[in-house]
Amino acid sequence: MAQSNGLKIAVIGGGSSYTPEIVEGFIRNYDQMPIRELWFVDIEEGKHKLDIVGNLAKRMIEKSGLPIEVHLTLDRKRAIEGADFVTTQMRVGLLAARKLDEHIPIKHGVIGQETTGPGGMMKALRTVPVILDICRDIEELAPNAWMLNFTNPAGIVTEAVLKHSKVRSVGLCNSPINVQKFLAAEYQVPEKDVLPEFVGINHLHWVTSAIVRGEEKLPELLDGGKSYTAKNVPTLGWDADFLKSLGAIPTYYLKYFYMKDTMFTDMKASLEKDGTRADIVSRVETELFELYKDVNLDVKPKQLEQRGGAFYSEAAVNLMNSIYNDKRDIQALNVANGNTFDFLPPDASIEVNCVVTGQGPVTLAPKNVPEHVKGLMHAVKVYEKLTIDAAVTGDRGIALQALAHHPLVPSVDVAKKVLDELLEAHKPYLPAFFK
Amino acid sequence: MAQSNGLKIAVIGGGSSYTPEIVEGFIRNYDQMPIRELWFVDIEEGKHKLDIVGNLAKRMIEKSGLPIEVHLTLDRKRAIEGADFVTTQMRVGLLAARKLDEHIPIKHGVIGQETTGPGGMMKALRTVPVILDICRDIEELAPNAWMLNFTNPAGIVTEAVLKHSKVRSVGLCNSPINVQKFLAAEYQVPEKDVLPEFVGINHLHWVTSAIVRGEEKLPELLDGGKSYTAKNVPTLGWDADFLKSLGAIPTYYLKYFYMKDTMFTDMKASLEKDGTRADIVSRVETELFELYKDVNLDVKPKQLEQRGGAFYSEAAVNLMNSIYNDKRDIQALNVANGNTFDFLPPDASIEVNCVVTGQGPVTLAPKNVPEHVKGLMHAVKVYEKLTIDAAVTGDRGIALQALAHHPLVPSVDVAKKVLDELLEAHKPYLPAFFK
Amino acid sequence: MAQSNGLKIAVIGGGSSYTPEIVEGFIRNYDQMPIRELWFVDIEEGKHKLDIVGNLAKRMIEKSGLPIEVHLTLDRKRAIEGADFVTTQMRVGLLAARKLDEHIPIKHGVIGQETTGPGGMMKALRTVPVILDICRDIEELAPNAWMLNFTNPAGIVTEAVLKHSKVRSVGLCNSPINVQKFLAAEYQVPEKDVLPEFVGINHLHWVTSAIVRGEEKLPELLDGGKSYTAKNVPTLGWDADFLKSLGAIPTYYLKYFYMKDTMFTDMKASLEKDGTRADIVSRVETELFELYKDVNLDVKPKQLEQRGGAFYSEAAVNLMNSIYNDKRDIQALNVANGNTFDFLPPDASIEVNCVVTGQGPVTLAPKNVPEHVKGLMHAVKVYEKLTIDAAVTGDRGIALQALAHHPLVPSVDVAKKVLDELLEAHKPYLPAFFK
Amino acid sequence: MAQSNGLKIAVIGGGSSYTPEIVEGFIRNYDQMPIRELWFVDIEEGKHKLDIVGNLAKRMIEKSGLPIEVHLTLDRKRAIEGADFVTTQMRVGLLAARKLDEHIPIKHGVIGQETTGPGGMMKALRTVPVILDICRDIEELAPNAWMLNFTNPAGIVTEAVLKHSKVRSVGLCNSPINVQKFLAAEYQVPEKDVLPEFVGINHLHWVTSAIVRGEEKLPELLDGGKSYTAKNVPTLGWDADFLKSLGAIPTYYLKYFYMKDTMFTDMKASLEKDGTRADIVSRVETELFELYKDVNLDVKPKQLEQRGGAFYSEAAVNLMNSIYNDKRDIQALNVANGNTFDFLPPDASIEVNCVVTGQGPVTLAPKNVPEHVKGLMHAVKVYEKLTIDAAVTGDRGIALQALAHHPLVPSVDVAKKVLDELLEAHKPYLPAFFK
Repeated sequence: MAQSNGLKIAVIGGGSSYTPEIVEGFIRNYDQMPIRELWFVDIEEGKHKLDIVGNLAKRMIEKSGLPIEVHLTLDRKRAIEGADFVTTQMRVGLLAARKLDEHIPIKHGVIGQETTGPGGMMKALRTVPVILDICRDIEELAPNAWMLNFTNPAGIVTEAVLKHSKVRSVGLCNSPINVQKFLAAEYQVPEKDVLPEFVGINHLHWVTSAIVRGEEKLPELLDGGKSYTAKNVPTLGWDADFLKSLGAIPTYYLKYFYMKDTMFTDMKASLEKDGTRADIVSRVETELFELYKDVNLDVKPKQLEQRGGAFYSEAAVNLMNSIYNDKRDIQALNVANGNTFDFLPPDASIEVNCVVTGQGPVTLAPKNVPEHVKGLMHAVKVYEKLTIDAAVTGDRGIALQALAHHPLVPSVDVAKKVLDELLEAHKPYLPAFFK
Repeated sequence: MAQSNGLKIAVIGGGSSYTPEIVEGFIRNYDQMPIRELWFVDIEEGKHKLDIVGNLAKRMIEKSGLPIEVHLTLDRKRAIEGADFVTTQMRVGLLAARKLDEHIPIKHGVIGQETTGPGGMMKALRTVPVILDICRDIEELAPNAWMLNFTNPAGIVTEAVLKHSKVRSVGLCNSPINVQKFLAAEYQVPEKDVLPEFVGINHLHWVTSAIVRGEEKLPELLDGGKSYTAKNVPTLGWDADFLKSLGAIPTYYLKYFYMKDTMFTDMKASLEKDGTRADIVSRVETELFELYKDVNLDVKPKQLEQRGGAFYSEAAVNLMNSIYNDKRDIQALNVANGNTFDFLPPDASIEVNCVVTGQGPVTLAPKNVPEHVKGLMHAVKVYEKLTIDAAVTGDRGIALQALAHHPLVPSVDVAKKVLDELLEAHKPYLPAFFK
Repeated sequence: MAQSNGLKIAVIGGGSSYTPEIVEGFIRNYDQMPIRELWFVDIEEGKHKLDIVGNLAKRMIEKSGLPIEVHLTLDRKRAIEGADFVTTQMRVGLLAARKLDEHIPIKHGVIGQETTGPGGMMKALRTVPVILDICRDIEELAPNAWMLNFTNPAGIVTEAVLKHSKVRSVGLCNSPINVQKFLAAEYQVPEKDVLPEFVGINHLHWVTSAIVRGEEKLPELLDGGKSYTAKNVPTLGWDADFLKSLGAIPTYYLKYFYMKDTMFTDMKASLEKDGTRADIVSRVETELFELYKDVNLDVKPKQLEQRGGAFYSEAAVNLMNSIYNDKRDIQALNVANGNTFDFLPPDASIEVNCVVTGQGPVTLAPKNVPEHVKGLMHAVKVYEKLTIDAAVTGDRGIALQALAHHPLVPSVDVAKKVLDELLEAHKPYLPAFFK
Repeated sequence: MAQSNGLKIAVIGGGSSYTPEIVEGFIRNYDQMPIRELWFVDIEEGKHKLDIVGNLAKRMIEKSGLPIEVHLTLDRKRAIEGADFVTTQMRVGLLAARKLDEHIPIKHGVIGQETTGPGGMMKALRTVPVILDICRDIEELAPNAWMLNFTNPAGIVTEAVLKHSKVRSVGLCNSPINVQKFLAAEYQVPEKDVLPEFVGINHLHWVTSAIVRGEEKLPELLDGGKSYTAKNVPTLGWDADFLKSLGAIPTYYLKYFYMKDTMFTDMKASLEKDGTRADIVSRVETELFELYKDVNLDVKPKQLEQRGGAFYSEAAVNLMNSIYNDKRDIQALNVANGNTFDFLPPDASIEVNCVVTGQGPVTLAPKNVPEHVKGLMHAVKVYEKLTIDAAVTGDRGIALQALAHHPLVPSVDVAKKVLDELLEAHKPYLPAFFK
């Protein structure tokens, strides 16, 4: 990467409550990754939040004493022009839309979740067109930029970019870095001495190997029935016999699939008690932005850690750093399948270990792909593919096929009802479906 | 095939109520397929039924005036020795076992069905070891014989034989021949002028093309939302929008997957009213055997048609005839995948069109494999593969993985409970699991 | 196929000396395939031959008493408009070009042959653009027509059409029908009782099974070291040990690959003695056209059989007949690979058994693909793919890669020299290369 | 890897003239890779050389002052027992056999070379059974050891081990490390800042990308027609147009394929002038062993560098070091294909970039696999596969198929003659063929 006079980075969705995390990451890594300009972009509806969190970012940079220019803007094109990295962390329709995604499916007896099932699908239908619009800008104004997608559903969004644009793009999730940190803590070794193997697609992966200082620890991890949890997912435990015969540790998102019944029941109970996860996040965000407003605050506040999404920004900064410095370390990322899984198309996005070079990630062949889980992976990937097709065309028939073939949906009849209600509810964000 | 002095055919499970159908088929096709010896074999528990139906078979042959010797025996080896064709149509554990397969899953909120889900799995676990035992006999005593599996779950049974024996084997189901007959009737043409394309695996196929006199009729069939029914499956209709965007006609067994909720509800209601399907079949069989006892009866009685399994014997006789006479006509059969579906292993069994030659079936490449259904096919095939592994090893962990990954099972927890109860219930027929 | 009031057939390259054969075929099959109009098209340079052979065709039809209209024309669009079948049998650059294709490589120590090596490549470079131009006409004027390519190199030409047009197209060669006839004669059975299996690509196939009346005869055929010959290829014998360990019968064109040295030596000697094959064909054609001029001749003259290309027209008429009547018989044709060979791309053309339906050919999965020959098949297919790319783009670099990777070419250096000389020699027919 | 009290390393073929190189490597890397015991094993015929070079090794270690025990032995089992790494660097039949491998093919007009063509095949036929015998010892006496194959033909030998033993094994060649060093020198950067991508199989790879400090330099390398040479291969240049349209840099061994004619001519001329390469190596070795005898010599002599095989030991020590220390750096190695190349079987050996972990190498997916070269790779891989089958079974028919399908062999006839003469010449080392 041209080592010129520092990097330009554009953060789309800069008004996000996560912004202080990524700013902290940039400051911490400045010696390896000298940033010249940092652009936070948002849309009109997000201007208020952008101002608040953007000013906190400015105070953080100022405190650091680093020569980084911070720009807050609603002009996406200016932010993207000539950028080296563009990150996206946005929510089309804001938390209000997420609330509908979580609420409506539950009314029909289906899990309502931000990134999978009918809820995840609607988020994808709203988001993909916007992301592809951003890609048009990048193709024109920053053709050498790398686009880093944190925007959920990250697997679908990344696949849409791979298929429908020429932008160099990688999707990432904080789940793998949490596994890494869990293993390092468990074995009391530095993170670099741990190598978990990830097999799967975004929010649907299995840890199929865990090398610690050169030794395979997976059998003992399975034996102990150990697992790990994350703030944004209910912490139900896994059945020990199941893990052992599975021979892999499922990501916590797989509880939606392997424990459909209890997850649904819990979700419904919790909805009645505390509202949806969107409601909870909404309350947390309100509190966070109250904090951010404090003109004396010039560090990332501790409370942000409760927000979920732990280590997202560390993952993002690691990725940029490794591309910028041709580091060739191993990171689990969302990239094109190629030949990695022979039962998926080459242009499908998958979540696996990669070596990150100056030319981007190169996929590492998984050593151990459990036969047991191929069908489930394939089924969800079919749903993802159809969802992208539906997002791009606005075809209700394709959308129906996507839902009807999703493992969380019990029948075509339910698929149809949920789909109709969700499409109607999100009409303003789905122009392709209401031409 | 050596045209010698007539064929020897062994029918394993000869005491079945279906036997008059196959006898009728043999009589009707004698000019093309001259049978010298017809051996009906059964086990001790089936001797009573074998005697009744075997004697009816003898009367039917006698009436035909054909020089076919009929043998009734409990000595499987004698029946198999030197046979040209061995057919299997058996039910390990008899209807009592089927009743448990249907009943127990429903208690746990899961569809209880003879050939799929937990019920189908248990049938497979009981049947595969017996079938492989028969294969040992064929390898030794009739190495050039063709084995025709009607025994359900036919796809799993066929795959087990492909993987664990050297016997030349084909699985078959009456579902394709019913599609053929439906189309011929619909378009008022002879059956040979109709060519439906089948894509899938046993009891999980889609009709993806329907050529009638050289023209593709699928679009108009989908448009009209036409479908067809069979006696042994509830006749719920398909959603017309769904069919159209699917671009294929699902087999009626796919209602268990695409309409899990209503199928379960109907099944439970019907169970409470009329008992399981096993109960109904049991009543029908009792009546049939009463009829069969009539020493004046020397034709297949009309009432047999209500039994379900329409045209099974026609399908079987067609297959033998085409192998014997190197006919090279097209039949939908259960055979090894090879490269047909690139997302399934080569040794998986699939249900597709084949050209039947004197050396057995050769697969026809499907022209149209809908992307939408690949995940579901793959998921069920994974379950089938694991079921075979469990049947052969008696490993409960593998059995749990099979069920936990079956699309009809809502959670690992339910899988575990259903599995435990079913294994216990079928203990006498599952020696590998109770060593 | 619309059974309307008879078929319209357009024969591109109608002035060919083969025309009487295809006319004979149409007459013989009229009861199954009622032809209304028969259009013979040629270009200005071929007008003289078109008149001669076209008038013979008219006399043959007249003698038959059938109500077939015969049209001779230079107006390709009129001939194609509304046609049901379009066949191509043309030679861009006429025999003079073939002579160069055969002559120039030999000067550089490389086999010079009409359909493979540098000669075949040049024929492809001249022909592909013309064929694609014809496809444009068919797409516009006869979108439902089937195009039957006899034009060599038939595999490359067919693949070019598959990749670069929407025309429904099949390639065919007379080599498979000759194998069929050889086996029928050898075993004294009707042709329909013989089923050879073809594995490979055009002019590079292996016979990997030979079922005669349901029994596999390949081992005894290999044991005897039997083979068959064709008029247009030197009849060298195969080594018996080689055939036996190969486990397949190679097509006679494979002698160019398996016997590079003696084939080259023979070819060079024969060139010095009798001129190239083009010279010989030229002499035969002159004699044939002398015969055709005879106004009393109203049948196909015996002498045509010496021309080579035996049974070409029988193969062509069989194919049309099976499509028209949805016959579903088995024919070896050049079609898209799909998943047939997992080491070749889906859109590569291959030569394998197909069932011919009213919707065109459906591929039969080969039962036996010898490991030994996969590399050679793959290498020649890579050459073919590059040749199509070169023909479409006029890129010399791609053309060089094609030749440099062709198994008949000993080095990059020779490839470069042969290519330069051939491109220059064929300049008038290669506008894409001399823009 | 158990970090216990130091490593045990067994070097099979310890009497090789290369031994001082590997000893130098062990000394230089001792701080990262503490070796406790170093066992040099050879056979009776090699005892004299083992003593000479083994004593030099002892003097080198002594000079280093490191606590490494050196053992010289003819008892292979003792050397292997409990070893952490076993390296093989042997030559079954010694240089006399290599001389025949080089000489006999040339008599028949075929390239005679140590690692490819008929010569390479014979080396494989002699070596594979011995290597598999060593594997039996490792399986029994050091089941956790890693076997590192330098023994040529390294690709075939590695594939044989992958297929016919349970030993954890990697093949390696010095060619990739030379590319690495060439690029580092060319761009004046440390080796770690250079990342060439290797696509292919052993001695048949292409460099398809060259990342230097994160930037792709391949286009400019191809433009300049730059290449690199090695001591053991004639330094003919590549055609610049060819390289550019190829889009990759071929390894120097590919000159045997892309320049068959001049390579053969040069080889024959050089044979007549200086004898075969075996003769030259023989003279060099005699001189080297004279030097090694000097009891005052206690370092690797400069003259060894002329021997060819530059940086072999550096490559070997790097690999051991990365496994031992779970380094996760990128090295080009010979490993199982898996899904890397979709046109080769999963158990084929390939030569590609890997990340070397404590559990061994993990394959990196090549970003750029040129279509052009797939056929050639496939063809040579088929030859390699057949060669292994022949080595294991002693089947002459399979051996004939291997040679007849090798791109360097012009015809079946030549294949047969060369094979017969070579098998006879090497009779003492080919017991499987002369049972």
